[in-house]
Amino acid sequence: MVERRKPIAVSEAVTRVMKYIKEGRVKMISIDECDGYYLAEEIKADHDVPPFDKSPYDGFAIRAEDTISATREHPVTLEVIEEIGAGSVASKSLKKGEAIRIMTGAQIPAAADAVVQFELTRECKEAERDFIEIKRSFLAGDNVSKQGEDTTKGSKLVSKGAKITPGVKALLATFGYAKVPVYQKPKVGIFATGTELLDVGDELVPGKIRNSNAYMTAGQLKKAGAEPVYFGKLVDDFDQCYEAISNAIDQVDFLITTGGVSVGDYDYLPAIYKKLGAEVLFNKVGMRPGSVTTVAALGDKLLFGLSGNPSACYVGFELFVRPILLSSFSHDKPHLQKERAVLDADFPKPNPFTRFVRSRVSIKEGRLHVIPTGLDKSGSVTSLSDANALIVLPGGTRGFTTGMDVEVLLLDGEGSKWPWE
Amino acid sequence: MVERRKPIAVSEAVTRVMKYIKEGRVKMISIDECDGYYLAEEIKADHDVPPFDKSPYDGFAIRAEDTISATREHPVTLEVIEEIGAGSVASKSLKKGEAIRIMTGAQIPAAADAVVQFELTRECKEAERDFIEIKRSFLAGDNVSKQGEDTTKGSKLVSKGAKITPGVKALLATFGYAKVPVYQKPKVGIFATGTELLDVGDELVPGKIRNSNAYMTAGQLKKAGAEPVYFGKLVDDFDQCYEAISNAIDQVDFLITTGGVSVGDYDYLPAIYKKLGAEVLFNKVGMRPGSVTTVAALGDKLLFGLSGNPSACYVGFELFVRPILLSSFSHDKPHLQKERAVLDADFPKPNPFTRFVRSRVSIKEGRLHVIPTGLDKSGSVTSLSDANALIVLPGGTRGFTTGMDVEVLLLDGEGSKWPWE
Repeated sequence: MVERRKPIAVSEAVTRVMKYIKEGRVKMISIDECDGYYLAEEIKADHDVPPFDKSPYDGFAIRAEDTISATREHPVTLEVIEEIGAGSVASKSLKKGEAIRIMTGAQIPAAADAVVQFELTRECKEAERDFIEIKRSFLAGDNVSKQGEDTTKGSKLVSKGAKITPGVKALLATFGYAKVPVYQKPKVGIFATGTELLDVGDELVPGKIRNSNAYMTAGQLKKAGAEPVYFGKLVDDFDQCYEAISNAIDQVDFLITTGGVSVGDYDYLPAIYKKLGAEVLFNKVGMRPGSVTTVAALGDKLLFGLSGNPSACYVGFELFVRPILLSSFSHDKPHLQKERAVLDADFPKPNPFTRFVRSRVSIKEGRLHVIPTGLDKSGSVTSLSDANALIVLPGGTRGFTTGMDVEVLLLDGEGSKWPWE
Repeated sequence: MVERRKPIAVSEAVTRVMKYIKEGRVKMISIDECDGYYLAEEIKADHDVPPFDKSPYDGFAIRAEDTISATREHPVTLEVIEEIGAGSVASKSLKKGEAIRIMTGAQIPAAADAVVQFELTRECKEAERDFIEIKRSFLAGDNVSKQGEDTTKGSKLVSKGAKITPGVKALLATFGYAKVPVYQKPKVGIFATGTELLDVGDELVPGKIRNSNAYMTAGQLKKAGAEPVYFGKLVDDFDQCYEAISNAIDQVDFLITTGGVSVGDYDYLPAIYKKLGAEVLFNKVGMRPGSVTTVAALGDKLLFGLSGNPSACYVGFELFVRPILLSSFSHDKPHLQKERAVLDADFPKPNPFTRFVRSRVSIKEGRLHVIPTGLDKSGSVTSLSDANALIVLPGGTRGFTTGMDVEVLLLDGEGSKWPWE
């Protein structure tokens, strides 16, 4: 007797998963290792920027009042009493009629209040003493970058939950974060189920195929900032599967299985969830591919039963696993980025349920265009490796033609807060 | 005496760098570790897909000729002689009047030539023997996925130089790549120069700033698929710098220095290149920021002298370092991805030279929009961390206003073959 399952909407399925959001564990990590992690605290300025009044140019620090009378015809002459490079500070304070040679970025010496650019001066030497001539007047503050004018100490610079990019790393270094508070990578267990599965190194034998889902899912986990823990393949045997899965759960933060969630004779996951006492959040979603995607909760730990079909497995991960991982990092856009694009091919199939079509987005003259990657038979092999987006065709629609405007979910985008209706 | 340098166009500067493309070293790596590497060989199918005639449905494998007379009124009855799951093969061959129960993905048994979906049959039992009734006729080939119909053994699936994504990993697993040929991550040395630089863990002291360029550049290198080797900071002392740099060169594939390339009194890199006997490819580029960016070649090894200004350093890396790294991986789009976008703010500054403006691209109604990230003073601190693109404003233009169409280079895009005029 085949079990009847009632499909729920994708948005409802995602909503049920997202009720289990838990903030991740925090650790301090060396700035050298922080790339790609997510910030577990907001980053604040530990000092003013600039940290002191500084010179934006190579030139001479002066007292503006000394230049009041300066004109092209009657330049003023100032004595250069010291020279400071970036990183040094003047040992002397300026007195009337004096200047200090200063490099870009260097701190303005005491009593100086303006900088004259190098190229607006004429240098001259007299009796072993250095002088400059200045042919116009300057105002106090001219060519001085004031302490704190860019940002003041304590200002918020980057939000908690932001991914650490090279630009964020520059801020972390500038503001003294030798150790960076980040979210630990959650451990996510993977089992691939199915007697038909061979290991990647095995020779093909009749009736069997190599396990690809486990490797693909491990790749998706790494890309999403998690640490995959591959527990191996499971043959279609209830006791063996139950034993392996119940032992694995305690070792990880989330558990993914691929395959075994359908209603076939060899699909043991539903019975395993039951014996574990896990609450099934849903076991049928109104979507293609991936309608059999099942998610169960054992206490506060989620067990993701993804389809054994590679495309369905891929989509199930991106729709249901990725957002809860990114939410645990406090990321504010945990879902795939939703955009509109121009469809560049006909897609005549009717869509009884919401369909996610593996596809490739490109930009033409500033506008997003999209084309399915699996249009021909051979595309079914490479449709995932070529894809950088999923077209979303709503259930109940009858087919789409070239030039129509469609919704796409970007696989490499910056994310959406909530892409569902 | 300030040295006069003649600026060259960005495209010319990039061209001079790209003459030094060398294919990277190849290594075999476990499929578990291959994420983010670049393929050093094209990936081919080691078997047909499907590898055998297989069933796309749960159902019964039959001989089509046995159903010729089947109608709703006069169904034919076949005896079910065996049941096979995915991964198993039938032990029996079909004879007239027989059927074998088969699961999705299983191999079609010998002598069977069609599959009847489960839901189109009625099962019945008689004297401990299993039968099915079929109410319509089938043709040979119905519901059979033929061996090789998706792809044939030897077909090219992914190009050499492609980045390994989760989807590519699925193909690698499917086709038995337990070890994957990839390009080794080149080692790229980093020195930050300047007496004004403090370590990230140091307390601020007057006149000094913390070194951020080295950490940022290390992040950019990792993102581009290289391995950063940070050699530390160098104070503005010629002998010390020369010694450290000449010792480092042999340990790395490329060397990056930040700072010290200008024409100031403390800029020693030009003299160091000279003493090393390195050929300076250029030392002035008609661009802002980063006009002092210098690249020199010592034999076939490139020395990148990036500006000490963080934004200029960032841009110099993306324009000159990134493409030669990606080219060494045989990647066919090594440069930043060039697109058109609608400018969402005024940018009144004149552009005597090509200007690269740190900015943020977003998509609105399927169309790219862009806004500079450093519009106000405080933006100058976070303009890099917020940026995901560079607006390119051609030299000789006078200012841009809201709504104009501008060229952008995407920092997280899939790349361009050649974005320059």
